Amino acid sequence: MCLDKFFNPQSIAIIGATENEQNITSAIFNNLFEMGFKGTIIPVNPHHDKVFGLKCYPSILDCKENIDLSIIAISSDHVPGILKQHIKKRIKNVIILSGGFAETGSRGMALEEEIKRLSRENSIRIIGPNCLGVLDNYSNFSTFFLPWSKVKRPSKGHLSILSQSGSYAISMLDMLALEGIGVSRFVSYGNRADVGESELIEYLTGDDSTNVIGIYMESVDDGRRFIRASSRCSRDKHMVVLKVGRRDSGINAARSHTGAIAGKYEIYKAAFKKSGILEVNNLEEFVDACKVLLMQKPARGSRILVLTNGGGFGVAVSDICSAMELNIAQTPSGIKKSLSRHFPEFFICNNPIDLTGSAGDEDFGFALKTAFVDNDFYDAAIIIPLMPPTTMTEGVVDIISQMAKESGKPVVVCTIGGVYTKEIKEQFELKNIPVYPSPERAVKAMNILVERGKMYGC
Amino acid sequence: MCLDKFFNPQSIAIIGATENEQNITSAIFNNLFEMGFKGTIIPVNPHHDKVFGLKCYPSILDCKENIDLSIIAISSDHVPGILKQHIKKRIKNVIILSGGFAETGSRGMALEEEIKRLSRENSIRIIGPNCLGVLDNYSNFSTFFLPWSKVKRPSKGHLSILSQSGSYAISMLDMLALEGIGVSRFVSYGNRADVGESELIEYLTGDDSTNVIGIYMESVDDGRRFIRASSRCSRDKHMVVLKVGRRDSGINAARSHTGAIAGKYEIYKAAFKKSGILEVNNLEEFVDACKVLLMQKPARGSRILVLTNGGGFGVAVSDICSAMELNIAQTPSGIKKSLSRHFPEFFICNNPIDLTGSAGDEDFGFALKTAFVDNDFYDAAIIIPLMPPTTMTEGVVDIISQMAKESGKPVVVCTIGGVYTKEIKEQFELKNIPVYPSPERAVKAMNILVERGKMYGC
Repeated sequence: MCLDKFFNPQSIAIIGATENEQNITSAIFNNLFEMGFKGTIIPVNPHHDKVFGLKCYPSILDCKENIDLSIIAISSDHVPGILKQHIKKRIKNVIILSGGFAETGSRGMALEEEIKRLSRENSIRIIGPNCLGVLDNYSNFSTFFLPWSKVKRPSKGHLSILSQSGSYAISMLDMLALEGIGVSRFVSYGNRADVGESELIEYLTGDDSTNVIGIYMESVDDGRRFIRASSRCSRDKHMVVLKVGRRDSGINAARSHTGAIAGKYEIYKAAFKKSGILEVNNLEEFVDACKVLLMQKPARGSRILVLTNGGGFGVAVSDICSAMELNIAQTPSGIKKSLSRHFPEFFICNNPIDLTGSAGDEDFGFALKTAFVDNDFYDAAIIIPLMPPTTMTEGVVDIISQMAKESGKPVVVCTIGGVYTKEIKEQFELKNIPVYPSPERAVKAMNILVERGKMYGC
Repeated sequence: MCLDKFFNPQSIAIIGATENEQNITSAIFNNLFEMGFKGTIIPVNPHHDKVFGLKCYPSILDCKENIDLSIIAISSDHVPGILKQHIKKRIKNVIILSGGFAETGSRGMALEEEIKRLSRENSIRIIGPNCLGVLDNYSNFSTFFLPWSKVKRPSKGHLSILSQSGSYAISMLDMLALEGIGVSRFVSYGNRADVGESELIEYLTGDDSTNVIGIYMESVDDGRRFIRASSRCSRDKHMVVLKVGRRDSGINAARSHTGAIAGKYEIYKAAFKKSGILEVNNLEEFVDACKVLLMQKPARGSRILVLTNGGGFGVAVSDICSAMELNIAQTPSGIKKSLSRHFPEFFICNNPIDLTGSAGDEDFGFALKTAFVDNDFYDAAIIIPLMPPTTMTEGVVDIISQMAKESGKPVVVCTIGGVYTKEIKEQFELKNIPVYPSPERAVKAMNILVERGKMYGC
């Protein structure tokens, strides 16, 4: 498939290459070196003989080698002329990083129309302009031109991201890296002169390294194709979308940002639903949803067990679940009896079950075994183990993970607090139990699993 | 005032004192030692002669010294008997930490009625039971029985917190400490057998160390007194409330948690509004609102300037502002012209102003000087400097802080990302510019300043 060369090129040209640190190409070179990219890198710039020790050509036409993919980082005025050289050299894949196109006014729009025409008439596939391009964690290739010292690169994993916005893309990278969420492919496509999200979704549908696809969208490229592609893709892979430019001032801002015509939000909402895409409202929910879908399976229903040693959080989680139509179903009397027999009188044995500040690790184990593993009444569990009491140790991680596994049902954990709590979070997530730092975020993540379950079962 | 002794006692008794690490009193001793509490500490326990090197008395009646405040941490069954000793010893202030009262059923309810009666008939003031008690960062006194190694203690500052829930109190401590927000007094009052939030608000109204009061509420103690106290207090001090137990399952959970009857949420909502209290929806908003009120002054109106070098975030902030009725007013043409003359063609000079990924520190300075300092059109600014571009340095902190100061108007900053971004956050907050890690949180914080400005001006 022709998009392959965007992700796994054997040889790339970098047009406008320089070692000057103020220029974005220098960060690209350094990033590629750091990542251990194995393909051939060909610098192109009439002002240099060598760039980072590599032979530099005055133009791509002077270079005899085959070029899979060209990366253009020069002033927008010169881009059409350079593209014409690509036609002669028969280069079929181009990433245009430069800004100064449709997002800037009439002259830029004319330039963008010109590159669109050149692309169409000569079957040159373009990602961009006005974008960060591609990051592929499997081929160790990236055109993202922020130094990895200033933006953290997520590890290799199974989440792919498509983003119209470059600044969002950068923030996502950092957030995913901080959360320890692994990424497979990441495309920032900016003004979308040619390749857009619909075609990228088609491509990722066949990508074995991708289990979850997250999309940041200001506008859609081709509504029908998008729905068709997503409907097929979402059968096997989880899809999450964050749509911005929903209200008037946001729509106007989107137009100046990537030249996008955002259109009526309600239509988007309906299209996402039809296509089996889970919609979220902000970047935090976006990352949280991707995480829960990577780590847990969808829920078969909406009866949620809430288990905590901090009663206030049980109250909060119940409130939020009610608002989201998740069912904090009363604990069946058989379970309640078994719990009451075992626990001290002041433990609350009805859902939300409150083991109080006196509880220790084993109390979580007993409650889960009784109410969630040995009895199939609840569909999923939100567990809130607060770590500050001296009776709570990191042993609770193994106990909860083991019970989650035995139940075969989805579990999310909420735990709140400082440094010690963060260590516990990391231990849980090594065992694929997602942890959230607030009741809202835990409930929203659980709701994602319930919504996904409603769409395609679990 | 009789509540003083809860916050600044010269001598305290700890009933149930032991060095046993599994017992909560041992954490209280260690915390008091670590904090450098200057008052006399008197352990009481018939099973020990000494506790942590201090002479231990079999009962408070055996102790000749005067006791300002007694802290009770024994099984609930024994509390009424011990309280009767307090009557004899004429101790007038008591914190009961023990659980096992109204939150646990009919026997506990009877015990709680008994201590209420003893309090009423003998003018003994009680905080608790089923609570963490008091933290005072000015007198270095605390009954919070979590070791400071597992929960971080916030620094000394000007925020006071009243919390019905102990687990929320703990999480707040950690969050406030992590955010670097300073605290003056913190009361967790649990089942509220006697002293409740209304009286505590009256007390804090006269407290010079308190500028902002945050309240976590499941139910109110005395509606009329609460409204009267808050209406007076909120004239001079900012008040923020987080009400949980809003919906059916939350209300039920609250009843098992602290025996609270939560009642109809709509009535609470109206009462908060009437009393000049700003309401928030969750713990994160709670901390964010307290922070912005501590650092910035209220806004005189709702015309918000948005300034960023990451266009996608300009779009998002505009969307969210629209949803909150904050006005992303078009930039007046005079300002627009001045900006356009100075900046490259591809900068977007209309609100939300997008300086693009090419901008450096000085561009933020010029834009703010032109659109926010020299021109009084906008009431407040949300600034989103993304740090990854190589053109951005920490110099932007001084520039933005200086412009905020010169404008005399409120400013909040949103910046998103990893480690480097966190350093920038800390630098901004040293200069009292609050920083939020997402567009939503920045806009909500700004909305707090606008709402507060509507209530009492700025």
